[in-house]
Amino acid sequence: MAIIKKVGFVGTGIMGAPMARNIAQSGFQVSVYNRTAEKANPLKEFGIKIAKSIPELAKDSDIVITMVSDTPDVLEVIEGPNGIAQNLAAGSTIIDMSTVSPSATKELSSRLSSIGLSMLDAPVSGGSWGAEQGTLAIMVGGDEAVLSQCLPVLESMGQRITHMGPNGMGQTTKLVNQILVAGTLSAVAEAMVFAAAHGSDLEKTIDAVGAGAAGSWQLSNLGPRMINGDFAPGFMIKLQQKDLRLVLEAGSVSNVPLAVTALSKEWLGIAESLGASEEGTQAIIKSVEKLAGVVARRPNSSN
Amino acid sequence: MAIIKKVGFVGTGIMGAPMARNIAQSGFQVSVYNRTAEKANPLKEFGIKIAKSIPELAKDSDIVITMVSDTPDVLEVIEGPNGIAQNLAAGSTIIDMSTVSPSATKELSSRLSSIGLSMLDAPVSGGSWGAEQGTLAIMVGGDEAVLSQCLPVLESMGQRITHMGPNGMGQTTKLVNQILVAGTLSAVAEAMVFAAAHGSDLEKTIDAVGAGAAGSWQLSNLGPRMINGDFAPGFMIKLQQKDLRLVLEAGSVSNVPLAVTALSKEWLGIAESLGASEEGTQAIIKSVEKLAGVVARRPNSSN
Repeated sequence: MAIIKKVGFVGTGIMGAPMARNIAQSGFQVSVYNRTAEKANPLKEFGIKIAKSIPELAKDSDIVITMVSDTPDVLEVIEGPNGIAQNLAAGSTIIDMSTVSPSATKELSSRLSSIGLSMLDAPVSGGSWGAEQGTLAIMVGGDEAVLSQCLPVLESMGQRITHMGPNGMGQTTKLVNQILVAGTLSAVAEAMVFAAAHGSDLEKTIDAVGAGAAGSWQLSNLGPRMINGDFAPGFMIKLQQKDLRLVLEAGSVSNVPLAVTALSKEWLGIAESLGASEEGTQAIIKSVEKLAGVVARRPNSSN
Repeated sequence: MAIIKKVGFVGTGIMGAPMARNIAQSGFQVSVYNRTAEKANPLKEFGIKIAKSIPELAKDSDIVITMVSDTPDVLEVIEGPNGIAQNLAAGSTIIDMSTVSPSATKELSSRLSSIGLSMLDAPVSGGSWGAEQGTLAIMVGGDEAVLSQCLPVLESMGQRITHMGPNGMGQTTKLVNQILVAGTLSAVAEAMVFAAAHGSDLEKTIDAVGAGAAGSWQLSNLGPRMINGDFAPGFMIKLQQKDLRLVLEAGSVSNVPLAVTALSKEWLGIAESLGASEEGTQAIIKSVEKLAGVVARRPNSSN
């Protein structure tokens, strides 16, 4: 396996754009492809080349990274007509960093292997804030030697890179991550509205309970945004809904009763019905507020 | 208000005993009363006096702390016949560190005030581990001047002592704490069983996701106990069930829809039906395991 110099990147959305930028800033030659080409244009100033098509991108890359929305998108850009697979040199690697179905990932990697291509599933956690800062957690499934070869590229985007096992196990770990994120977030929303309804000082409450057994990343990072009415997306509700659909589908196959996870998806669904689909997941609080008839935000908040 | 020298302590259970010991070891003269007197005997070796009755304890104390199970117990030891209130010198303070109803606390403090007694509600978070180490978080409701006077005593038991507002607000904050703890714990249990059912390495999973957006005290501290089959109580399920009953009662009065909290109480209730009532709250995983038909514990675990 040769040293990687040229990295192709498909999908330059809210996550993909800063990830591609970080790869370029680590010294790799990066070219990107995005379905809506104009969205990729701001990346030019970082020395990134904008490819006109996936074949053009794949033919000019040592490895290709995909960061798209859902399972069908991954299958389309990799295996579709004019896809990555038929245009990438044999022996190369595709790294899918999207969050998609673990079982579809396992099958895809097996098909790619049969045509001489390696694959890593390497979904991330940390949201657009983590993507911007290059501090994403990356959960990797696939061959360990392939991971070693790709590590310098992954290290340009993230800090905690864990090899979880064979293909599919990166995606499985990401779904575990989303179960934890969803249930914890729901608890934070219920807690903040309860506190507000009972006359608590919400900032003081987060301080008082956040350092102990009630503490979590969700409380420390999204609690203050909830009570300040800051619903800018680090991670959009509609994308968490897609991830939780994958979680519940997988849990349904394995018969794991994900009651709190399913209910958390409902809380997020109510927020979507209130117009918060493209807001950050912290906007889940709008659901609880609506049903309680209480707003858990400080009177001087901006929103 | 005079300097506090003599502290009476009612209720020397799994939490109260180490709390009373820490007060004594900070230099206060401590006497204790426990309904089952023998349980208090081991405290003698720390220079603690065992009182034969509440009146004997109250007459010999500058302040009295109560650490009992539920609202009726607090009302009984404070206002019952031969209770603390009728035996404590006027101008003294009662600190209730039990977790009980915020509204009952507010009413109790008002009645005590009318007979010349001050009260603080000062429930704690951190479980028996925090009680042993003197690292409890303490959430205080009541008069700020009274809190200042009692601070040296509270500091002997805890690290983060926050004044939340008037009487009742300490208890309200504790209920907020329990909403957060319960929902986060449920998410950890569902995540661990999902991970096990999908063939994940559970220790590696906790490491991979624990430092990011999925991270929580519950995951870092109780996740490893779950997967090691260590169900020794830091905080017993039956006591969390009592606290969650208080949460749901209060939420019902204020019309806050605590869906995930209620469901978490159900998960804990299933664990109780499986015999885990006096185990630690991490035994919630037994419920998810039972329904999934999967055991999320490592093969070499002891239990």
